Amino acid sequence: MAGVKSLFEPKSVVLIGSSRIREKVGMTSPQLFESVIYNMTKFFKGETHVVDVEGKKGARTLHELSHAPDLGVVMLPPSGSLEQVQNGAKMGIKAFVLLTGRFKNPQRKQLSDLKREYHVRILGPNTIMGVINTSNGLNTTFERDVMPPKGDISIVSQSGGVGAALLDWACSYGIGVSKFAFMGDKIDVDDVDLLRYFEKDTHTKVICLYMEGIEKGRKFIDVAREVVKKKPILALKGGVTKEAARRALSHTASIAGSDVVFDAAFKKAGIIRVEDIEELLDAGVALAKQPPLKGDNIAIVSNVGGPAILAADAVVKNGLRLANLSEKTRRAIEKRFPGLEAVNPIDLIADARAERYAFVLDKVLSDPNVDGVLVINMLKSCFFEPEDAVAVAETAKKYPNKPVVDVPAGGEDFTLVQKVLRSTSIPVYNLPEKAAKALKNLRIYGKIAEATMKKI
Amino acid sequence: MAGVKSLFEPKSVVLIGSSRIREKVGMTSPQLFESVIYNMTKFFKGETHVVDVEGKKGARTLHELSHAPDLGVVMLPPSGSLEQVQNGAKMGIKAFVLLTGRFKNPQRKQLSDLKREYHVRILGPNTIMGVINTSNGLNTTFERDVMPPKGDISIVSQSGGVGAALLDWACSYGIGVSKFAFMGDKIDVDDVDLLRYFEKDTHTKVICLYMEGIEKGRKFIDVAREVVKKKPILALKGGVTKEAARRALSHTASIAGSDVVFDAAFKKAGIIRVEDIEELLDAGVALAKQPPLKGDNIAIVSNVGGPAILAADAVVKNGLRLANLSEKTRRAIEKRFPGLEAVNPIDLIADARAERYAFVLDKVLSDPNVDGVLVINMLKSCFFEPEDAVAVAETAKKYPNKPVVDVPAGGEDFTLVQKVLRSTSIPVYNLPEKAAKALKNLRIYGKIAEATMKKI
Repeated sequence: MAGVKSLFEPKSVVLIGSSRIREKVGMTSPQLFESVIYNMTKFFKGETHVVDVEGKKGARTLHELSHAPDLGVVMLPPSGSLEQVQNGAKMGIKAFVLLTGRFKNPQRKQLSDLKREYHVRILGPNTIMGVINTSNGLNTTFERDVMPPKGDISIVSQSGGVGAALLDWACSYGIGVSKFAFMGDKIDVDDVDLLRYFEKDTHTKVICLYMEGIEKGRKFIDVAREVVKKKPILALKGGVTKEAARRALSHTASIAGSDVVFDAAFKKAGIIRVEDIEELLDAGVALAKQPPLKGDNIAIVSNVGGPAILAADAVVKNGLRLANLSEKTRRAIEKRFPGLEAVNPIDLIADARAERYAFVLDKVLSDPNVDGVLVINMLKSCFFEPEDAVAVAETAKKYPNKPVVDVPAGGEDFTLVQKVLRSTSIPVYNLPEKAAKALKNLRIYGKIAEATMKKI
Repeated sequence: MAGVKSLFEPKSVVLIGSSRIREKVGMTSPQLFESVIYNMTKFFKGETHVVDVEGKKGARTLHELSHAPDLGVVMLPPSGSLEQVQNGAKMGIKAFVLLTGRFKNPQRKQLSDLKREYHVRILGPNTIMGVINTSNGLNTTFERDVMPPKGDISIVSQSGGVGAALLDWACSYGIGVSKFAFMGDKIDVDDVDLLRYFEKDTHTKVICLYMEGIEKGRKFIDVAREVVKKKPILALKGGVTKEAARRALSHTASIAGSDVVFDAAFKKAGIIRVEDIEELLDAGVALAKQPPLKGDNIAIVSNVGGPAILAADAVVKNGLRLANLSEKTRRAIEKRFPGLEAVNPIDLIADARAERYAFVLDKVLSDPNVDGVLVINMLKSCFFEPEDAVAVAETAKKYPNKPVVDVPAGGEDFTLVQKVLRSTSIPVYNLPEKAAKALKNLRIYGKIAEATMKKI
């Protein structure tokens, strides 16, 4: 196996570090090495080898291994890393993840030379967390026991810190992840390589990017334009203000480029741009679970008045419209529930349970005037029980071309309903405003998909 | 005791409902009555009486009580509620909370007549959740065992649903609350009455409002202008778009008024307007715990690069500036930690622990070029431990005039650090963008306070 694929789908991995290193600071500490070994041993379904260059865990040198593993994960200081990449490349390892940072320019050059000489692929250096693949359990992070749930979103982060925040967020909110790649200094494998890999990866439905800068801008746009025909790409760009851009330069050696230029590039590439980490994952979940939104007309179905009004505000602020329900829909609802006024946003009243949600949602989704639905089901101040949310998922399933998103507004309510809906296709948000933003992003991808179709 | 004060500070309360009522729907169900009795019995430090008009819990009529309680909480259908308010008012009860909704216009008029005839104060009808006071344990909600932690924020919601979401959010994220008031239909006690009460309430430092409409606009503005001299008022307005406003009319009988008019009114009153439920509480916590921001210059102190860049972007997008650290500050930091580059945003590097945070934060806060600080302390991908956050709170305490906010970006990291900082004066946010918004709102109040001072 060769190339970028080896970074995510190796059959065998060797972890190269030291359990005795004298450096106090940074990625090369023995404890971190120990944690990576722990995670790989616990989660990875393939072979894990350990080379402990100064200590007693596993082998002392790569030469002690009987055959070359597919992937080498290196967490030594720069000079030690270079030595091990050279040794590994010579013995036939085809891909490396370099967790350690602080490579100086001459050392970067040496790394590039090794890459060219041996035709190996290198992720990093300075990736800090490396890679995660929830399908085969590959996990080179040193966050002990941290593994996001399996899912369809693949995440690429240029920054270890933002990547760590995304990982933490995904684990805490049960967001299904396919793969994580922390790019670091991008001496070799970059956004373009990863986009190409994810384009073909059957476990990836949505690609989420955190980026500070881009070198091969034109290539990136060309590749992205191809990828978005098959799957959406979402991007959060750091360093959009002049002040932050200056800092990004020293952070990941990125020339950030002006915000306007990036905006134009993203638009041209068909990449959906988001504003923060939360929106990146919120939109990722929506696009992984739901179809694109094919029109602007949203129905709101709620068991409370105030949050439905906030949702209506948010829908309109996000460039969508409140659907005008057809006469037929209105009559059907009011006939079945004489107390209800079937005006959008529809207030099902505080005692609505599964059956009322299912009936109204069914009518609304079958209405040609409706393109998508924002459901609000509060538990507090209402009779709704978490398991009633199953009815939302079941009804939505009958209309696979119209997206449905769900809002149990709040903290505990959100957690309880999210637990019930996590395994279904319904994305759950803790505020109406976030659900409306998710619908906006589903609409943007709907338009991108439409434009792509026309061009073909 | 009389007036609005009785709604929050009664020594004795009577709960009037029915454990046998035949209505299946709404606020008058026996289970909800049972839950209110449970909450009051569990939390309330004063006397709790029960009048069960058709059942066997406590007395059958108010006349069986030996003296008039300070507050009557009524959860009967409209006709029954009216009867009990009349009986109670006659025997000397001075204030009522009417949880039940669905009062028709003639019934509202009867209620107004009773109010005038007996000089009683009425909150509601249709308040759904009534009132909470964390100081004396008053809790008329039917959410069993739900009580927010004690704190300095008082919250007024016109909508039961938004109020429930705010309550749920406060409980889940450990946000300290002084009082909750759910206004409902505002037949008597309204925003103006509550502002006046909270103005004098020593347990209230910040007032948070959710409103859909306002009747006595001029009065509201005049009173708010007085109140904001002493404590900040934050407002979330529902029904800002034409589409949602139409719905607000039928929801709480509010004439929403145009968004532009509201915006001007809020500005004139010195009310800080926010965009959603989360920002309302995020800003509330910041203003309750930290001083107003007296200038635009923010320093960012972080142990990760990427999130610091996102923070820098957010600071600038929120109309603030990245502070130019003085030569003295820069030299002091770089002398003590030769590896660090003391450029704002300051990257303390992934192995920073309490001591490095304390030193750098101290230097930065003593810098006259800095008006406030946004601290980022990630746990994941870093060496920072939750208890290290104590150093942030301890250092910030030495500079009581400069606000400090803290960001452990993510889900689990946020929860762990929040647990440590909850009892301190440091507000904690799960994303840099939310912390930057909190600083913006601290700056807005800084300007409001300044303008008010000049006028005096």
